[in-house]
Amino acid sequence: MTPRNATEKEVLSVIRPEKEERDDICTVAEMLVKAVNESGTAKGMVVGSVARNTWISGDRDIDVFMLFPPELPRESLEEEGIVLGRSIASRFGGKFVEKYAEHPYINTTISGFDVDLVPCYAVTDAARIQSAVDRTPFHTRYIQSHISGLEDDVLLMKQFSKAGGVYGSDLMTEGFAGYLCELLVLTYGGFSELIEACKSWQTGKTIDIAGHQGKHFDDPLVVIDPVDPNRNVAASVSLAKMGEFIELCRGYFELPGKEYFFPPVRNAITRDEFELILAERGTGLYSISFATPHQIPDIVVPQLRRSTAGIAALLERHGFVVNRYDAAMGDDRCYLLFELLVDHLPPLYVHTGPPVENAENAGKFREKYLRYNVLSGPFINGDGRYAVEILRKWVDAYALLASDDLFSARLGKHVVKSMKKDCDVRCGAACWDENICDFLSAFFNKISSVSALKKL
Amino acid sequence: MTPRNATEKEVLSVIRPEKEERDDICTVAEMLVKAVNESGTAKGMVVGSVARNTWISGDRDIDVFMLFPPELPRESLEEEGIVLGRSIASRFGGKFVEKYAEHPYINTTISGFDVDLVPCYAVTDAARIQSAVDRTPFHTRYIQSHISGLEDDVLLMKQFSKAGGVYGSDLMTEGFAGYLCELLVLTYGGFSELIEACKSWQTGKTIDIAGHQGKHFDDPLVVIDPVDPNRNVAASVSLAKMGEFIELCRGYFELPGKEYFFPPVRNAITRDEFELILAERGTGLYSISFATPHQIPDIVVPQLRRSTAGIAALLERHGFVVNRYDAAMGDDRCYLLFELLVDHLPPLYVHTGPPVENAENAGKFREKYLRYNVLSGPFINGDGRYAVEILRKWVDAYALLASDDLFSARLGKHVVKSMKKDCDVRCGAACWDENICDFLSAFFNKISSVSALKKL
Repeated sequence: MTPRNATEKEVLSVIRPEKEERDDICTVAEMLVKAVNESGTAKGMVVGSVARNTWISGDRDIDVFMLFPPELPRESLEEEGIVLGRSIASRFGGKFVEKYAEHPYINTTISGFDVDLVPCYAVTDAARIQSAVDRTPFHTRYIQSHISGLEDDVLLMKQFSKAGGVYGSDLMTEGFAGYLCELLVLTYGGFSELIEACKSWQTGKTIDIAGHQGKHFDDPLVVIDPVDPNRNVAASVSLAKMGEFIELCRGYFELPGKEYFFPPVRNAITRDEFELILAERGTGLYSISFATPHQIPDIVVPQLRRSTAGIAALLERHGFVVNRYDAAMGDDRCYLLFELLVDHLPPLYVHTGPPVENAENAGKFREKYLRYNVLSGPFINGDGRYAVEILRKWVDAYALLASDDLFSARLGKHVVKSMKKDCDVRCGAACWDENICDFLSAFFNKISSVSALKKL
Repeated sequence: MTPRNATEKEVLSVIRPEKEERDDICTVAEMLVKAVNESGTAKGMVVGSVARNTWISGDRDIDVFMLFPPELPRESLEEEGIVLGRSIASRFGGKFVEKYAEHPYINTTISGFDVDLVPCYAVTDAARIQSAVDRTPFHTRYIQSHISGLEDDVLLMKQFSKAGGVYGSDLMTEGFAGYLCELLVLTYGGFSELIEACKSWQTGKTIDIAGHQGKHFDDPLVVIDPVDPNRNVAASVSLAKMGEFIELCRGYFELPGKEYFFPPVRNAITRDEFELILAERGTGLYSISFATPHQIPDIVVPQLRRSTAGIAALLERHGFVVNRYDAAMGDDRCYLLFELLVDHLPPLYVHTGPPVENAENAGKFREKYLRYNVLSGPFINGDGRYAVEILRKWVDAYALLASDDLFSARLGKHVVKSMKKDCDVRCGAACWDENICDFLSAFFNKISSVSALKKL
């Protein structure tokens, strides 16, 4: 194994938990497992990075799973899981909240730790899981039995990915989950080895650590789950985030600086800077905001993405030219942002009809537009179709976005519902909002991680 | 055969040559044939509509071919052809000009007729022709031996096509040649039958009157030449002109009015009307004019088309949005016309680079733009490629067209040469030019023939 360089040694001295932190967290975790076991209804198990000994100093998350017998009906599991979770939370913590992923679980604070108490099924084989969370115990056991000696490498990999903005498998980040970081360290046998290998990754890179050779995946990065051959652990990694990671590995390989683990904080833009940037780009900026739907992020985030793409497509269908778009989900409000190269159009709009050879429809089209106030036509275009030049419905992108035609875009169900209640459409400098200045900064200072580091 | 309706009878009484006109033209034609024969070097033959008895009253064109032995070398044919043509022209006419198609011929005026004296080879089989003009005598013989009794139908078909703007196989018209009109009348056995059949034509319609069943053609309309199975007589017919013809047949079939043969004259727009139209459409109009290259139309016209499409593609590459474009070739000057929906753009331009996985090029791209004054980037886009947002070279379509970058468009060779000498680029109301008011009218009042008739 490659020896640690000075940077890595220094980073580890910061991110590796000391004995005291380790003892603290383990005491609480064990206490909770014991409480689950004593209930008699479920078996307790610590999962996540604490169980795997791969948490970064300062992380205060403890995940305790409550494993119920697989014969238990789903509703009973949910009910009993919540009852048990509540009782443990009340006993050790105090306030707790019921949260919801694929099924409900309890979140509470115990001795300063953020604790999740999650019910799942104690299945005997990862291929027989009844819910996605049932797989987690298998992941934990797999990592526990393979990671020994590589814990520091996982810490480095996690910190490196976080600092580079590619850590996190949620649908907004589209990056690398903790389990994926662990598997990659196992695959390459160490952090340095991982860096050297990943800098040459190509799209479609496939890693099959357990040699399953099963299903084919079309994702940019494929890491077959050693406990479930039908699952790609890297399914959530987008092409862009994979590219960012490759770039980070290359950059660090060339010059292994501390900034790859502790990047400088980037200041969010101020309102004045924002207006200067708008003037310099000369583009048309449009924002649409509405109350964040009361659904889990796994449901809301894909709907935000689909809605943003849908509205961009609507704008393009009407002849406007979109440069970029993005979405942000806040606790209270969601923001969709569109930057347009063309947001005003002349009144002329070309409407193309059926081919002349289609006698019936062609005739109807021509007769209709002969009675219409047209700019030109009906004429026969180069493809042998009828066409007319008529007055455009929307010459201005703002008017379109502020109209009911907005809802002819392909939007997510919950997004539509929220938009119909309250939809704030803004344009240009009016898009500025203190709540989203980080989002606006990232949008306008869009830059890859390594480029940003090199620009310093 | 369907009996003539009243319209057709009335039209024929106008377009069918009377005996006097017929005698006049035949006397001159026979005199010229005799003169060719008397030369001893070639055999004379009248070709074209006069020979086929299918000319429209008032046409003053006589085509006399001078058939030389096929053994004669090409240079000798050209030389002897021109010598003989000149001597005949001098003897009967006076002034003459040497013109050039696939090889040179003589054009002169004799007794008020416009006479072409064209040398060709007297080949024994149309499949053995040495030059495209060698095929003409075969066409004439074929029509002469089949057309008897259908001459009036050909006259109606020719007048109908001319009136509808689809007559003429030159590359600017992309319509129906006289020979094609004759073959269609033969195919369907009469004008009325032709109208009824053609109104249901579909793209790819194939007519093989001689039953050759040879080569496959991809053209919108295919009429296999009965004297040459490898030739599509309708090769020059565009999809748009085929559509116009189908529409005309349908319109006439429904209501066989005289206007289908004698359409009302459409007034060209005035300068005031032109400015009103521009304001109403709100689009950006650009014209480029230059001296017409000294080449035959068969060479210049395709170059004009290619150049116009090439410049439209150049505009689109730079982000401008083109609605329509067209070209006109005058005796002195050529005009290219472009109508733009978007002719001004913001300074922001997205430049996309190599994929990140291509380490060497990606690195070069990033390093280059790290030293550049960018608006954003280098960043990694959704396709995993590097991209930057930089300042656009041309924010204004006029500036692009008036710059040397115009020559980065795909242009015809002779067009480039002429443009480099003198290229007049204009914008908006300045595009008005009395010499092209018909062209501007047709461009802005673009309408199919039947739509125009119905709008009256």
